[in-house]
Amino acid sequence: MDRVKFLLDEEEIPKKWYNIQADLPTPLDPPVKPNGEPVTPEDLSPIFPMGLIKQEVSRERWIRIPEEVLDVYRLWRPTPLYRATRLEKALKTPAKIYYKWEGVSPPGSHKPNTAVAQAYYNMKEGVERLTTETGAGQWGSALAFGTAFFGLKCTVYMVRVSYDQKPYRRIMMQCWGAECIPSPSKRTKFGRSILEKDPDSPGSLGIAISEAIEDAVTHDNTKYSLGSVLNHVLLHQTIVGLECKKQFELADDYPDVMFGCVGGGSNFAGASFPFVADKLRGDKPDLKVVACEPKACPTLTKGPYMYDHGDAAKMTPLLMMYTLGHGFVPPPIHAGGLRYHGDAPLLSKLVKEGVIDAVAYHQTEVFKAAVTFARAEGFVVAPETAHCVKAAIDEALRCKETGEEKTIFFANSGHGHFDLAAYDAYFAGKLVDYEYPAELAKKALEKVPRVKPKVV
Amino acid sequence: MDRVKFLLDEEEIPKKWYNIQADLPTPLDPPVKPNGEPVTPEDLSPIFPMGLIKQEVSRERWIRIPEEVLDVYRLWRPTPLYRATRLEKALKTPAKIYYKWEGVSPPGSHKPNTAVAQAYYNMKEGVERLTTETGAGQWGSALAFGTAFFGLKCTVYMVRVSYDQKPYRRIMMQCWGAECIPSPSKRTKFGRSILEKDPDSPGSLGIAISEAIEDAVTHDNTKYSLGSVLNHVLLHQTIVGLECKKQFELADDYPDVMFGCVGGGSNFAGASFPFVADKLRGDKPDLKVVACEPKACPTLTKGPYMYDHGDAAKMTPLLMMYTLGHGFVPPPIHAGGLRYHGDAPLLSKLVKEGVIDAVAYHQTEVFKAAVTFARAEGFVVAPETAHCVKAAIDEALRCKETGEEKTIFFANSGHGHFDLAAYDAYFAGKLVDYEYPAELAKKALEKVPRVKPKVV
Repeated sequence: MDRVKFLLDEEEIPKKWYNIQADLPTPLDPPVKPNGEPVTPEDLSPIFPMGLIKQEVSRERWIRIPEEVLDVYRLWRPTPLYRATRLEKALKTPAKIYYKWEGVSPPGSHKPNTAVAQAYYNMKEGVERLTTETGAGQWGSALAFGTAFFGLKCTVYMVRVSYDQKPYRRIMMQCWGAECIPSPSKRTKFGRSILEKDPDSPGSLGIAISEAIEDAVTHDNTKYSLGSVLNHVLLHQTIVGLECKKQFELADDYPDVMFGCVGGGSNFAGASFPFVADKLRGDKPDLKVVACEPKACPTLTKGPYMYDHGDAAKMTPLLMMYTLGHGFVPPPIHAGGLRYHGDAPLLSKLVKEGVIDAVAYHQTEVFKAAVTFARAEGFVVAPETAHCVKAAIDEALRCKETGEEKTIFFANSGHGHFDLAAYDAYFAGKLVDYEYPAELAKKALEKVPRVKPKVV
Repeated sequence: MDRVKFLLDEEEIPKKWYNIQADLPTPLDPPVKPNGEPVTPEDLSPIFPMGLIKQEVSRERWIRIPEEVLDVYRLWRPTPLYRATRLEKALKTPAKIYYKWEGVSPPGSHKPNTAVAQAYYNMKEGVERLTTETGAGQWGSALAFGTAFFGLKCTVYMVRVSYDQKPYRRIMMQCWGAECIPSPSKRTKFGRSILEKDPDSPGSLGIAISEAIEDAVTHDNTKYSLGSVLNHVLLHQTIVGLECKKQFELADDYPDVMFGCVGGGSNFAGASFPFVADKLRGDKPDLKVVACEPKACPTLTKGPYMYDHGDAAKMTPLLMMYTLGHGFVPPPIHAGGLRYHGDAPLLSKLVKEGVIDAVAYHQTEVFKAAVTFARAEGFVVAPETAHCVKAAIDEALRCKETGEEKTIFFANSGHGHFDLAAYDAYFAGKLVDYEYPAELAKKALEKVPRVKPKVV
């Protein structure tokens, strides 16, 4: 029998994160203020600890993972690399399909890889409480989990409509000792101003971000934490790809094509960047790396590459990235984690330079692929993840036609245990495939300030 | 750093199940019919395939696991044995605490260990469809998963009130291709008779069992499948304990005391029997093996040891076991899997002979322990499993007082992702601790027919 799992022992967890900033063909465009001035570390220090700010701007290739972080990673890492032999048989493809399974983490996704690290660096600098926002709760539950190990308090502003409709991840946060508050709330000035206008406001991610940042900057020993997009978040996620490289060595194989879903970009960056390094270095010029996104929010496939705010409330600096406009509100697809208007600057740059490709799908075809996967391999994946399952299956079927024995990889970033209502809608034939809302995006993009970065 | 995970490679999965019938001090009392006649293999053949019936009565010590079953086991097995170093530190105990984590299986519990095996043996004998009943859906989802790998259809009768209130596991069954029907249903004569009397019947496990069996015996190439209690089910679960023994060797340790929750008994039997074998053989005379149950359904701690039916509808043979009476309806505690009136004959016998002990808890103290565990180790466990977490923590605290460096083990049988409403009730202070319903049990026991087995 062929092996189906490639495991590493806990001593084999990589001891350093990989920082792709060291290997970019040209440096990253800096984040800027609306007046075009580059953002300085001091500008960021009210909301992030210096340890993370240093990582944000570092060009060191390898950054040591603290022992205390490794000690927590060991609770679920290294995660298994699977060879999907049953899926290959079901598809009758000559291709080999591999996936890295992050669903074994207690919060059920890749998110704790950075949550644990962020909690650690904040604790080291005397921070006593972290604030953050969450939509459906995946990031909030990961940060609740991460802070539990370092004695930090955690306050999560959860979009009210999700807080009411999707209580499960909120309860998980409580299991780990975090405080989860429906947003808009009376805790913040901004929240109160919203509630005054509309006491029944369902909230939005933009409002929740604003509340979380306000809470952090107006309280002592309190900082804010972000779950994707930023360089240091992507850095922490490279633990996934670094493990993966060791596991492909065990398998005596190497991917020809890699797929991952992209919301803010940290999941796929983490899985792929250690391989992208080989491509940038010229060792693997033919490696295809493909970001998978929803047609309802096609940032990489339809958006322009330009400076834009990371959040709807314009509280963040302007980042150089693919964007549909910070005011863009995508249609309500079930893959909530892929409904972000922008994308990580590092990932965006590599797409812009042609190193990484992108593809977009409708949600019905995506769920169909996820069900094919569940029936072959057993795991029920998150709707976000299902986007790259679709891409991997399509590639395997192309190989069936051409006879190519390609090695296909996808980043299986999390389970769908809290997303089963979406599967239910799929089985009932009730999923809606939203066309690309081009007009909405056009209007949102018109409102993005045109800034020219000033040369330092 | 001490290791926290003891992993085995997939080639190290045990190749044989352990059958404790070979090592019992005295043979098991046979299942009998109401007239006292022993049940023959022929009696069972309308509902079970001969492969499983043979295992039910076998006294062979080792039974080979078919390659096809091992091939499916590899998707998530071997499961990790954890050393709970963080929990030890949190409790400040000198004891060492280990747990075997079955939550990594796609259905999230130990149940697929037998579901996969049962699906295989049925497939081998030409069975095309399996029927079963399920309460909250843990067993139904495991069988849906198991049958998916062998091309069998699967029909799950799910108690209507759970079908309506707890849709998630129903949707998982659909993900794996099973048909899930609210019971009582119009599919069966028995279901129709119930609906005629009460069109809004909420259903019960007893009704669902009756429908599943009727469906199996009235259709060609259709058999019935049971998720606990029977000898062959416990046999399949010994894969857990056998892996565990190898892992304790890696850890250079051996348990002094083992805890597991007991509903029907298959989970704890599977984890402990390979160790109980050492005790029966006299190699580990001091090993303590403790079954953990709810005070609301205290079968082992309060029930008599006698012949009783395995189901409320009296369709099964009479089994020699601890029982609170087949008509006993326990209070609605959240650990639905522990609300069974009886216990596996094999486990019951070992309790009767003093080899295995039993202890009972209230649900509030049980959830408190589960939250302590979640905050230390990260995993949110099922309410059933939480019973043995409570026992393990209590033992560790006793060790703190006495200074004993005991090695404590508990069977961490599954995650609580679909049970978070119960945690929510705990946090809200809304859990009810039901006293032992002695009067209910007394009445139920009065209705158990007194049978004397005829000597064959």
